[in-house]
Amino acid sequence: MFEYKINKEVSLKLEDYTDSKGLFDLVDSSRSHLSEWLSWVDKIQTENDIKESIRRDLIDFSKQEGMYFVILYKGEIVGTVGLKYFQWDVKSAEIGYWLAPDYLGKGIMTEAVKGVMAYGFDYVSLDKIEIWAAEENLKSRSIPERLGFVQEGMRRNNELIKGTYHTMMIYGMLKSEWKTVNS
Amino acid sequence: MFEYKINKEVSLKLEDYTDSKGLFDLVDSSRSHLSEWLSWVDKIQTENDIKESIRRDLIDFSKQEGMYFVILYKGEIVGTVGLKYFQWDVKSAEIGYWLAPDYLGKGIMTEAVKGVMAYGFDYVSLDKIEIWAAEENLKSRSIPERLGFVQEGMRRNNELIKGTYHTMMIYGMLKSEWKTVNS
Amino acid sequence: MFEYKINKEVSLKLEDYTDSKGLFDLVDSSRSHLSEWLSWVDKIQTENDIKESIRRDLIDFSKQEGMYFVILYKGEIVGTVGLKYFQWDVKSAEIGYWLAPDYLGKGIMTEAVKGVMAYGFDYVSLDKIEIWAAEENLKSRSIPERLGFVQEGMRRNNELIKGTYHTMMIYGMLKSEWKTVNS
Amino acid sequence: MFEYKINKEVSLKLEDYTDSKGLFDLVDSSRSHLSEWLSWVDKIQTENDIKESIRRDLIDFSKQEGMYFVILYKGEIVGTVGLKYFQWDVKSAEIGYWLAPDYLGKGIMTEAVKGVMAYGFDYVSLDKIEIWAAEENLKSRSIPERLGFVQEGMRRNNELIKGTYHTMMIYGMLKSEWKTVNS
Amino acid sequence: MFEYKINKEVSLKLEDYTDSKGLFDLVDSSRSHLSEWLSWVDKIQTENDIKESIRRDLIDFSKQEGMYFVILYKGEIVGTVGLKYFQWDVKSAEIGYWLAPDYLGKGIMTEAVKGVMAYGFDYVSLDKIEIWAAEENLKSRSIPERLGFVQEGMRRNNELIKGTYHTMMIYGMLKSEWKTVNS
Amino acid sequence: MFEYKINKEVSLKLEDYTDSKGLFDLVDSSRSHLSEWLSWVDKIQTENDIKESIRRDLIDFSKQEGMYFVILYKGEIVGTVGLKYFQWDVKSAEIGYWLAPDYLGKGIMTEAVKGVMAYGFDYVSLDKIEIWAAEENLKSRSIPERLGFVQEGMRRNNELIKGTYHTMMIYGMLKSEWKTVNS
Repeated sequence: MFEYKINKEVSLKLEDYTDSKGLFDLVDSSRSHLSEWLSWVDKIQTENDIKESIRRDLIDFSKQEGMYFVILYKGEIVGTVGLKYFQWDVKSAEIGYWLAPDYLGKGIMTEAVKGVMAYGFDYVSLDKIEIWAAEENLKSRSIPERLGFVQEGMRRNNELIKGTYHTMMIYGMLKSEWKTVNS
Repeated sequence: MFEYKINKEVSLKLEDYTDSKGLFDLVDSSRSHLSEWLSWVDKIQTENDIKESIRRDLIDFSKQEGMYFVILYKGEIVGTVGLKYFQWDVKSAEIGYWLAPDYLGKGIMTEAVKGVMAYGFDYVSLDKIEIWAAEENLKSRSIPERLGFVQEGMRRNNELIKGTYHTMMIYGMLKSEWKTVNS
Repeated sequence: MFEYKINKEVSLKLEDYTDSKGLFDLVDSSRSHLSEWLSWVDKIQTENDIKESIRRDLIDFSKQEGMYFVILYKGEIVGTVGLKYFQWDVKSAEIGYWLAPDYLGKGIMTEAVKGVMAYGFDYVSLDKIEIWAAEENLKSRSIPERLGFVQEGMRRNNELIKGTYHTMMIYGMLKSEWKTVNS
Repeated sequence: MFEYKINKEVSLKLEDYTDSKGLFDLVDSSRSHLSEWLSWVDKIQTENDIKESIRRDLIDFSKQEGMYFVILYKGEIVGTVGLKYFQWDVKSAEIGYWLAPDYLGKGIMTEAVKGVMAYGFDYVSLDKIEIWAAEENLKSRSIPERLGFVQEGMRRNNELIKGTYHTMMIYGMLKSEWKTVNS
Repeated sequence: MFEYKINKEVSLKLEDYTDSKGLFDLVDSSRSHLSEWLSWVDKIQTENDIKESIRRDLIDFSKQEGMYFVILYKGEIVGTVGLKYFQWDVKSAEIGYWLAPDYLGKGIMTEAVKGVMAYGFDYVSLDKIEIWAAEENLKSRSIPERLGFVQEGMRRNNELIKGTYHTMMIYGMLKSEWKTVNS
Repeated sequence: MFEYKINKEVSLKLEDYTDSKGLFDLVDSSRSHLSEWLSWVDKIQTENDIKESIRRDLIDFSKQEGMYFVILYKGEIVGTVGLKYFQWDVKSAEIGYWLAPDYLGKGIMTEAVKGVMAYGFDYVSLDKIEIWAAEENLKSRSIPERLGFVQEGMRRNNELIKGTYHTMMIYGMLKSEWKTVNS
């Protein structure tokens, strides 16, 4: 219920407190894989930490600063995707995502991000969507590249992961470009 | 997207800021009908008032105090339904609702409330759901009565509408009763 | 000083921080008796817990949401009584109370509640006063019954005490009824 | 009810919202007299301004920063007196007061302040009480002088009234001195 | 007093409330020039608006999120420069600035920014400093270019000025690069 | 940088987070000396406690309630001096200060206070500056006495140090007096 069916196997559901156990178990069992590029993973030690992060996400939602979804694959939670860092003056937001390692290579994330792009451009009326990824995180960078985002530049040393600075690549797609791609 | 299909014609959608225009137009055109029993209607004079009420609803949601849905009938917004006044110690909440007058008599609200009951008992794990309605508001009272709620009592003079006190009827259904009804 | 003399032996005093030691000792020595029907008793483990609850009560007072009094019997603190859950739109509030077991059977609470009723109807201009009590708590229910309150109904499973749901009985008295009783 | 009888004619009552009309009328009709030495009087233009000031006073009370009383003379509100600027580390507070001009010269304020001193030293356990008054405000200074306070010094130009700086005289009484005076 | 002398003519001073009149007059007389690239200029209509913005800047300062300086040229306020958007995890911040048009072309801003860079790298221990400027704002872009910043990329349509989206150029300098330049 | 040079050896710098280590080391090594008259010294046990106190000072600054400076002697931090307890209605503030014992007897504090007085009267436009000191703290009292402050009075038992009440002497200087002294 309250799902957004993207295709037969993939759907999105607004993240709420009923997801806390499912998300915690997934993060906990994918810990070593996820923590390579996600600095928040080490802070999630109990289901309560997930509940607290859901609470923050829902407050973001109430302020129109973010929208967070769990990705369901054949009914199972396999990751999350969200629109965040809304800049309403320029009608822009960033898509962020992570997927448990067992579900990589099935095209799930590409479909999920396409779904959120449609949601963001059509439903929320954004004019631009960005995706940021660390320079060396090729798996993450492949999503915007596959979806036709423009690589606009980078910000050097803009992320700290396990004590090392990483340069972030900035990808962007304007609504006009998306319409061309989708027509 | 992000809908909960109840039957072919009726579905629910989590209320968010994109609903503000649709809700305002509906409230505005149903004003005389709705204000008979809903004291908040007179406070909604512009779309901004609806936005402010959506903001309050989403803050309730982030605090686990309420969940509010718009009711879609053949894709059109025709009213709202919600779970509110959560009492987590006794796992109880109240269902509130309103429907635009043009859509009365089609069984829409009965179906929508049944959907929210399934959502509340199964998904949110409530042990009890209540519905409160003014003694003289027979249309509203018919919903819990049709759905098999127990009339537990009343609270005299517990609502002020257009300057007159009204007695509120308290209807309740326990999870155990709901399971019996639904099996 | 600052007392409201109800009769020669019973008086009320607005609860403040100087009552913290007296209240803590009373709760602590009446713990097993009080905790049968009052879920908050187990949370009071030190005098500081009482101070914190006085702080909350005084904040309620500053917001016009509650007024809390200690009951003095021959100058000793023997319990508390208060007006709470003010609903200013319908000019209604609820009276809550507890008495240490050594002082039961002397009519102290009946007199204290009568005093608060006069205070609520005459001084605060309420139109209705309610008393809620668990169905099986016959001692507590005897107060509104003796004072002529109407039993308006119940809310099933609306209180959790020591892990068990209890049905709450709702008693109410309108100002018009009170005037009849008191004339 | 909830009064502190000081003598047959004078009593104190904790200031609450039911006093707003009485206080406003008194301030309004004593405006020219009171505004000579009280800079807040000009800010009170409607009963709502009094309500707001009562709200602030009650919040002070909940934080143990102040306690404010109305002075009743033969049952009528004639002024206020309060303990404020509590310094809990040195167990000290200041008494402030004003009286409507029609009631001057009857010894009302001297009795009211004596009552608050007993309240402060005995009930609240203060070690010191101060009274501050503008150098030229001889009427106000006569109260601490009559009651045996020590004039400890002054702070020059420490009050702004109608655009002119005034030097404030500081009077103080220690608990030990008060015991000597009162024995 | 409390100045940071950069050379004989240029110095910086931490912005505080005593600057409100000077800043307002400068903004007001440079309004048409400044508003071309600074969207906040139109919101400054009175000296109070400047005071409010100083208040926000000082709160940023107390949270270690920003530091704002007025630029003095021969003792006159001629503009401001600041470190803002501190990202303490990656020890990075952005320099922002504006200069009244009468003082352009004298190398004042280049010197002021060099001063803030020394302050940021040496005193605040930053590892990276960025400067962002609209693509068409060649005057602003000339500062980082003259100072040897690396142009890392851009963010398309990331600023809204007078109803038109502008692409922002991102310039960055690492501490290691700055040391090379300055040695 | 951002210093206010008072003479060749003494200067003031607005206190900020970069001072936390220097201040902590100074307080820690002067602990027994400082704690004789400063009750806050015992609460500073780690550098984080100093950071927290800097945070509070900067918040005071943003509210125009205080300004705090470190005193540099030949470039070393040797103590602090500040303007606090601003009373904007009467344009008054109090100067507070402390010096590490190794630097006593060099006239440093007298010069630092003179600098802050110039800052307060000329730059901040105060009409009065006060200095408060415990009656028995002759070293601290010698500063205002040497600088020509008027001893206006005292407040008995107004400070608690190591469990003992101390009387505070109030010294004040009006702007008019300062101008006479300085001309």
